Amino acid sequence: MPRDKNESPAPRSSVTIAEIAERAGVSPGAVSFALNGRRGVSESTRARILLVADELGWMPGTAAKALAVKKSNSFGLVLARDPDNLGVESFYMQFLAGMERELAPRNHALLLQMAPDTASELKTLRRWRTTRRVDALLLMDIRVDDPRVAYFTEHSEFPSLAVGDPSSAPGLTTVWTDDAEAQREAVRALAALGHRRIARVAGLAGLVHTQIRDAAFRDETAELGCEGVLLRTDYTADEGARVTEEAIRSERRPTAFIYDNDIMAIAALGVFARAGIRVPEDVSVIAWDDSLICRHTVPKLTALSHDVVAFGAHVARRLFGVLDGAAPAAHLDSTPRLEVRESTGPAPASP
Amino acid sequence: MPRDKNESPAPRSSVTIAEIAERAGVSPGAVSFALNGRRGVSESTRARILLVADELGWMPGTAAKALAVKKSNSFGLVLARDPDNLGVESFYMQFLAGMERELAPRNHALLLQMAPDTASELKTLRRWRTTRRVDALLLMDIRVDDPRVAYFTEHSEFPSLAVGDPSSAPGLTTVWTDDAEAQREAVRALAALGHRRIARVAGLAGLVHTQIRDAAFRDETAELGCEGVLLRTDYTADEGARVTEEAIRSERRPTAFIYDNDIMAIAALGVFARAGIRVPEDVSVIAWDDSLICRHTVPKLTALSHDVVAFGAHVARRLFGVLDGAAPAAHLDSTPRLEVRESTGPAPASP
Repeated sequence: MPRDKNESPAPRSSVTIAEIAERAGVSPGAVSFALNGRRGVSESTRARILLVADELGWMPGTAAKALAVKKSNSFGLVLARDPDNLGVESFYMQFLAGMERELAPRNHALLLQMAPDTASELKTLRRWRTTRRVDALLLMDIRVDDPRVAYFTEHSEFPSLAVGDPSSAPGLTTVWTDDAEAQREAVRALAALGHRRIARVAGLAGLVHTQIRDAAFRDETAELGCEGVLLRTDYTADEGARVTEEAIRSERRPTAFIYDNDIMAIAALGVFARAGIRVPEDVSVIAWDDSLICRHTVPKLTALSHDVVAFGAHVARRLFGVLDGAAPAAHLDSTPRLEVRESTGPAPASP
Repeated sequence: MPRDKNESPAPRSSVTIAEIAERAGVSPGAVSFALNGRRGVSESTRARILLVADELGWMPGTAAKALAVKKSNSFGLVLARDPDNLGVESFYMQFLAGMERELAPRNHALLLQMAPDTASELKTLRRWRTTRRVDALLLMDIRVDDPRVAYFTEHSEFPSLAVGDPSSAPGLTTVWTDDAEAQREAVRALAALGHRRIARVAGLAGLVHTQIRDAAFRDETAELGCEGVLLRTDYTADEGARVTEEAIRSERRPTAFIYDNDIMAIAALGVFARAGIRVPEDVSVIAWDDSLICRHTVPKLTALSHDVVAFGAHVARRLFGVLDGAAPAAHLDSTPRLEVRESTGPAPASP
């Protein structure tokens, strides 16, 4: 039965306006105003009420519909990573720059927030959804059993897109790069050069794409009869240098290292040079996340290369598609390919 | 005389509603709705009308006041730089991460847009101001005779802040680092090591902070009786490598190089290594924008060090201050200090 849109919506779940009002610490009248998108409550109170209503499971989507007339012309992104760490990787700024190439011509902007932890990350995303602060949301750095994926799969009426492997967010639209195949290609290239003990200097274990690279590394080294050594880091230059120093002191020193980003690979070149270990004569090095600086190091870094700016642009186009009602689907962007430069070579003769 | 806020505002300038309507291609009624912040026009039409009204000089501030009830809880930043170039510098992500440390606890987000050129940069800023898309604006990379500064000085009722030397935006609140003093310190340190021919590998000439560094470099080298060689680049690793290659082939090769960012300094280490020029025995190197990777290169880079994350946080705090009505003022953040590592040493004996 159609209702006058200026009336309070009748509750269709067991949650009442009184309950929302009590939890939010406001009057029932204020709740009614807020849920109807009418004036009479401040924007911050409205936001709080909508968040509480959402928490209590109040008629999913209705609160959002109350604000659906309001288009913000912006996409949202919340990043939960250590700020000091974020700054050194070229990936994010290039990715964002690529997105902007699609957003700017359509007068869309990106609403960016960095969260100190994953709990506040989800809280911000939920607030943005319930208050329609943004028209659509981008999820990056998908984690194992990511609560963001569960939340936005449940609230599929809200446009969202996950950057990552389709398996990480099966109910959502995804745009992905085939990291497994790229990782296998790197291992195959090293094995073909005669390397039999290969180290993977990996990033954070909780991230799905780290696990995908881990698994591909394990599988491909096993398949080719190589020994695979997995070293764990937090992506920083300091950690990359530290695990490299440990590895070269070990009795079973790997003859090849694959680093999960360019910055750790550059730090490792420093470690090898200081230890008198020649690259590539004694040790081969491959970097993920090829960046311009990889072409200027000594030796120039062999890298898994991927057009990150184009990736960001692709993601933005797909997000507009989701906004326009495209059904959830998985879109392969590309497979990073091995750009062979000077840091890889034949395995040294056994000592 | 106070007026009912639901009435159309009477024009107080020579611009009429009819003129705005004609220019915007809408009805006079739509203009009236838009200027009063009332329903009846779409958000995109409202934005267009406000922009036209602003262009025609319609009662400056009034259109904005019509929307002043609407708080967006976001700060805006438009960057006009080459996306490919942006990605490789650690400065921006660290700066943004620092800002977020202040924004997130207050539930403010950053609205980010990258502009292909300076004309569209200003257009976006004007649209954000007239539609109150953001509560306050941040201006970075201030250029010589920057039209953004002129615009926001004229519209000083809108909260804005310029990141840069007070001389670059005299009418606005500024937060700055003393680049001139840092540049002089670098020259003094090299002169004290016996260097008499020093190169400055500078960034884009149109930026005020580049000119300030240029002038300080010229003054200090002259003061100390050194020859100062100014080499111009666009901040990229490729350009940093190119001008370094040219300089080392010249008859009057500098014995010391100061690079305007870390990425060019890293690329230059590659150039020197390939040319068989030892650092610091043959040539000394100093980098602006110390980042974590500077501690891992071979040799470790002597750098002008500055806590960029703290700088971003400071800027965000001052922007909240401007929002709260603080009068325009210049705030010194800090003076980058020379962090001496391994890439600087005594000048080589004259050949």
